[in-house]
Amino acid sequence: MKKKVTIKQIARELDVSVSTVSKALRDSKEISLDTRQKVQAFAKLLNYRPNNIAISLKNRKTKNIGVIIPEIVHHFFTTVISGIEREANKAGYNVIVCLSDESFDKEVINMETLANGSIDGFILSLSKETQAKKDFHHLQEAINQGMPLVMFDRIAEEIPCDKVVIDDVDGASKAVKYMMKTGCKRIALLSTVDYVSVGKLRTEGYVRALEESGGKVDESLILKIEDIDNCEKQIAELFDRAGFDGVFAVNELFAVTAMKEAQKRGYKIPEDISFMGFTDGILSKYAFPALTTVAQHGPEMGEMAAKMLIQRLESDEVDDESYVTEVIRTSITERESTKSN
Amino acid sequence: MKKKVTIKQIARELDVSVSTVSKALRDSKEISLDTRQKVQAFAKLLNYRPNNIAISLKNRKTKNIGVIIPEIVHHFFTTVISGIEREANKAGYNVIVCLSDESFDKEVINMETLANGSIDGFILSLSKETQAKKDFHHLQEAINQGMPLVMFDRIAEEIPCDKVVIDDVDGASKAVKYMMKTGCKRIALLSTVDYVSVGKLRTEGYVRALEESGGKVDESLILKIEDIDNCEKQIAELFDRAGFDGVFAVNELFAVTAMKEAQKRGYKIPEDISFMGFTDGILSKYAFPALTTVAQHGPEMGEMAAKMLIQRLESDEVDDESYVTEVIRTSITERESTKSN
Repeated sequence: MKKKVTIKQIARELDVSVSTVSKALRDSKEISLDTRQKVQAFAKLLNYRPNNIAISLKNRKTKNIGVIIPEIVHHFFTTVISGIEREANKAGYNVIVCLSDESFDKEVINMETLANGSIDGFILSLSKETQAKKDFHHLQEAINQGMPLVMFDRIAEEIPCDKVVIDDVDGASKAVKYMMKTGCKRIALLSTVDYVSVGKLRTEGYVRALEESGGKVDESLILKIEDIDNCEKQIAELFDRAGFDGVFAVNELFAVTAMKEAQKRGYKIPEDISFMGFTDGILSKYAFPALTTVAQHGPEMGEMAAKMLIQRLESDEVDDESYVTEVIRTSITERESTKSN
Repeated sequence: MKKKVTIKQIARELDVSVSTVSKALRDSKEISLDTRQKVQAFAKLLNYRPNNIAISLKNRKTKNIGVIIPEIVHHFFTTVISGIEREANKAGYNVIVCLSDESFDKEVINMETLANGSIDGFILSLSKETQAKKDFHHLQEAINQGMPLVMFDRIAEEIPCDKVVIDDVDGASKAVKYMMKTGCKRIALLSTVDYVSVGKLRTEGYVRALEESGGKVDESLILKIEDIDNCEKQIAELFDRAGFDGVFAVNELFAVTAMKEAQKRGYKIPEDISFMGFTDGILSKYAFPALTTVAQHGPEMGEMAAKMLIQRLESDEVDDESYVTEVIRTSITERESTKSN
């Protein structure tokens, strides 16, 4: 038997991107005619089978669910996977996990790897790069070929599929109002760059809470952090240039890093500055002081995603296009980093 | 095409364990003749193909590596996976991850899922239950059929394959000696139950360090924790009944939990009690005070495991049985929970 040909190999041989090969094979007009012909001829030469997703469908059930997440060294995603596992195992399915490493190309390659007969359907959270590019052709293609897909957390509105999200706007708004109720007058926001959908939505919640309380948004109190690994410096600079009595962070890492910076500068928590994070991970629980946070309920999100996918896999209505977006409600976990209400 | 039959389904139908089916299909004498015949007849009836691992071999390269880990909500394992990813991607391989959830049955099922043509070789760390049962027939079977396997961290000495471990005994011994050098006279040990190989080895290192320094092991200072999620209570009881000026924990969770208990009781860290953990994860880094720890270098361990597997996959010597055990050296990351040397 011959060695299997992959999109990645074709891309490498022709020195074009994975996305170009993937689109050229579907004869997408986004790709020049010349490139399309070249890719298609080469794929034919190598006996590449572009429609291998379809082969696995309907005829055969693998009882496997494929999960693609952006990062694995990330507590929230691991809790979602544990929820997916629990629900899937209950229904007799196995779970196979692949990582996109926040890369668009890897996301496309992962889908190719898994869809090639190994799984019955996907659960996916988008990579940052895919969100920035807004290129979802690989997802659309899987759906077109009848492969069920459920997106969670980092979703694309325009893709017709089932989705599970949390109430990011609402959760952030509740958190900021909670801080105001405990006496905070000037609340800084530690967020991510705008193309990460959850950062954007939580920023929206922060703004809404301030506006609804008759306050004004002070742009100098908003910090958008691009490089998570080096957030210390940007956070220290915020302390240098702005005064505030509360910090709301869109994740727990930013919150805990900011608490350390505050303690280094001699501030008392929560007497001088209150802190709240988003995501109730181990960092929040074991931080000193323990961090008050918006709990995202990752395991429940995973359970819901698995439930929706399995329902679709086991449904007889093959072309049911009434897609649902389920919202998992966040809740506030009160700990020691905020004043009592 | 018929629905694929799995070991799990056969087990369920016949109301026996997954392990029994797996062994009966290989005609293992451990299983009664009656059960063997029943399982084999039933498998034949359903057209179960027991040797599907072999089908995928030699004839076909998937360029996928399968990884089976015990837990995903566990920082160390996620760092190992990030190392495997990095090395595998460099060599043009994709990585597929499955979780055993510390269950023997799930480990067997995962191997069946993945070995069924989806991957070229395995990287695996044993589940607690497999370590307790000492049943490795599924690994031996994969190896017998020519499927390369690399074990890491939680390994089985008796399985003939490449392995990557850290110097658990040495690392723990170095840590305890480090604490003694900073003035600790009575060092408590927070360990796991003995069937978890790394807990056992690190306990050995603790004992060795004390003995080599002419000290005696005081059993009342050793705590073996079974249930990680409820370790608080056991740790509090240790504080109640024993006096000590140092705590060495075989993981960071125990160390951080013990630090919180000490702070609750008004002890100063490190002035009154010093603390050291094992595994340099986010908890250690962000704990307050930041935890001095034995760094396990998870990413390097993953890179090494992937390198060894890929070397074997791409080697022409198909029956090379000169297996290697690589040792990743730990190092001490000095932070704020121990006195300066």
